[in-house]
Amino acid sequence: MASITFTAIEGLPLIRQGDNLGRLIAGALENMGLRPVTGDVVVVCQKVVSKAEGRIRRLEGVEPCALARSFAARWDKDPRVVELVLNETVRIVRMDQGLLIVETGPGWVCANAGVDESNLLAEGHAALLPLAPDRSAAQMRAEIHRLTGALVGVVITDTFGRPWRVGLTEVCLGIAGLEPLLDLRGLKDLGGRELHHTVVAVADELAGGAGLLMGKADGIPAVLVRGYAYKAREPGETGAKALIRDAKADLFR
Amino acid sequence: MASITFTAIEGLPLIRQGDNLGRLIAGALENMGLRPVTGDVVVVCQKVVSKAEGRIRRLEGVEPCALARSFAARWDKDPRVVELVLNETVRIVRMDQGLLIVETGPGWVCANAGVDESNLLAEGHAALLPLAPDRSAAQMRAEIHRLTGALVGVVITDTFGRPWRVGLTEVCLGIAGLEPLLDLRGLKDLGGRELHHTVVAVADELAGGAGLLMGKADGIPAVLVRGYAYKAREPGETGAKALIRDAKADLFR
Repeated sequence: MASITFTAIEGLPLIRQGDNLGRLIAGALENMGLRPVTGDVVVVCQKVVSKAEGRIRRLEGVEPCALARSFAARWDKDPRVVELVLNETVRIVRMDQGLLIVETGPGWVCANAGVDESNLLAEGHAALLPLAPDRSAAQMRAEIHRLTGALVGVVITDTFGRPWRVGLTEVCLGIAGLEPLLDLRGLKDLGGRELHHTVVAVADELAGGAGLLMGKADGIPAVLVRGYAYKAREPGETGAKALIRDAKADLFR
Repeated sequence: MASITFTAIEGLPLIRQGDNLGRLIAGALENMGLRPVTGDVVVVCQKVVSKAEGRIRRLEGVEPCALARSFAARWDKDPRVVELVLNETVRIVRMDQGLLIVETGPGWVCANAGVDESNLLAEGHAALLPLAPDRSAAQMRAEIHRLTGALVGVVITDTFGRPWRVGLTEVCLGIAGLEPLLDLRGLKDLGGRELHHTVVAVADELAGGAGLLMGKADGIPAVLVRGYAYKAREPGETGAKALIRDAKADLFR
C-alpha cells in the first residue's frame, strides 16, 4: 500500500540567532521517538531559518526612501517595512491595492519580497528571507546525517499567495537531497499517449502537505515526511531555482 | 503525535461514463482493508470525474472558429482542441507563446480551460472539466456515507500550472464536507501579535499532498487522507468557489 505520512515535529525551542537547526530537529525527533531514516524528508519553514541565520531586522533606524514613504502613506503601511521590501527587490511586478508583488534577487516572485513581521518575539522587527536557502537546507541535511546516520531530504518553505486563487500555500524556497521537479515528459499515459507537458512541482506539493500541520499560530515549524519515493540528488546537483520560471517564458512577470 | 497520512487508493477500474465513483472508491478501499472513517478526506482527480460524467468530447466533427484556426496554426496545435478550449472560456487572460490562459465559466483561471487529452483511452478525444465539481464531490460523499457509514470530506483536484513557478501542482476544483480555507485572521502569533492576512488554502494543500501519489502516468486517481483535522461543513455551506479570487481584487486577471 503506497502511503506518505506527514508528522509534526514537536518540542522545538523558540529559535534564536546562531541556533543549529539540524541539531535541534534531530534532537526533537529523538525526543519524539521518531528516528529519521534515509529517504525521509524534513520540511522546515523559512521563518526559523531566518531567525537562526540572523535575518531579522530592527525597524528602528531604517530610513525609508521617497517611494517607500509614498506607498506606505497611501496604503497605511509602515514605511520602514516597505523600505526593507524594496531593499530585497530587483523588479516590481505589481504595486497596487496595497500589495507589493516583487521579484527578489534570487528570482522569487512573491508579496513583500517575503519580508514578514509575524511570529517574531519582539515588536518592531521584520524577518527577511534566508540568503541562500539551498545552502541552509544542505547544512541541515549534513547535520542530521552526522547525528543520526540518515540521509534525509530537506525542503525549506515559505507561505506564498498566488494570482487567481484565494489563500496562501506553503511552497519550496530551498532544497537539499532531492529533485524539486518530477519530469514525466516522454512517459506513456493510460491510453498509450505520450505526456508532453507534465512536469510536477513535487517540492511544492511536499511543502503544501506539510503546511497542513504548520499552523501559523501554533508554532510547528517543521514536519517529517515518510514514504515519498523521491529522486535523490546531492546538494549542488539541483536547487530550488529549478522552480523559478524563466522571466522570458513567464507571461505574468 | 500529530500526523496526516495520504494513501493511494489502488485497484480502481478504468472509469467509464455512468460509473458511480463513490461506490467504486468505497469498494476499492474495502478491498484494500482500509475502511474509511468520519474525518477522512477522499481526494479524487478531475479526469475520472469527467469520464464518469460523460465530459469527454470527440474531436471529430468539432468545427474550429477563425480564432481557433489561427492560434492553432501559429503554435502547431490541433484547432479542434483550441475550439473546445474557447467554448469553455469567458475571458482570455493571456494568449501567447502557445499558451492559452483563460477564465472558465465558473471562474477558474488556468491553461486551456482545463481541456486535456491525456489519460483518455481512445485517440481523438479531449476531456472537459466537470460541470459542477462541488456537486460531484457531494454525491461521492453521500454515496460513501451510505455504503460505509463514514462521513468523509471529498476534494476533486486538477493539475494546474502557475505564474512565476515551474511545474504543475494539484489544486482543488470541487469540495464537499469541509471548509477549503482556514482563516487564521485575528489569532495571535508566537509573539502575541495578531495575524492580519493569514488565510490558508488547505484544500489546495490537501490536493498537493495527494498529488505526490497521483502520478500522471501510473493511474492512481484517488487518495485517502487520514488525520487532518478540518472544519466540517455541510454541502451547500461552502464550495470550491471560495478559492477563486474576485476578479476586481486580482492584479493578474
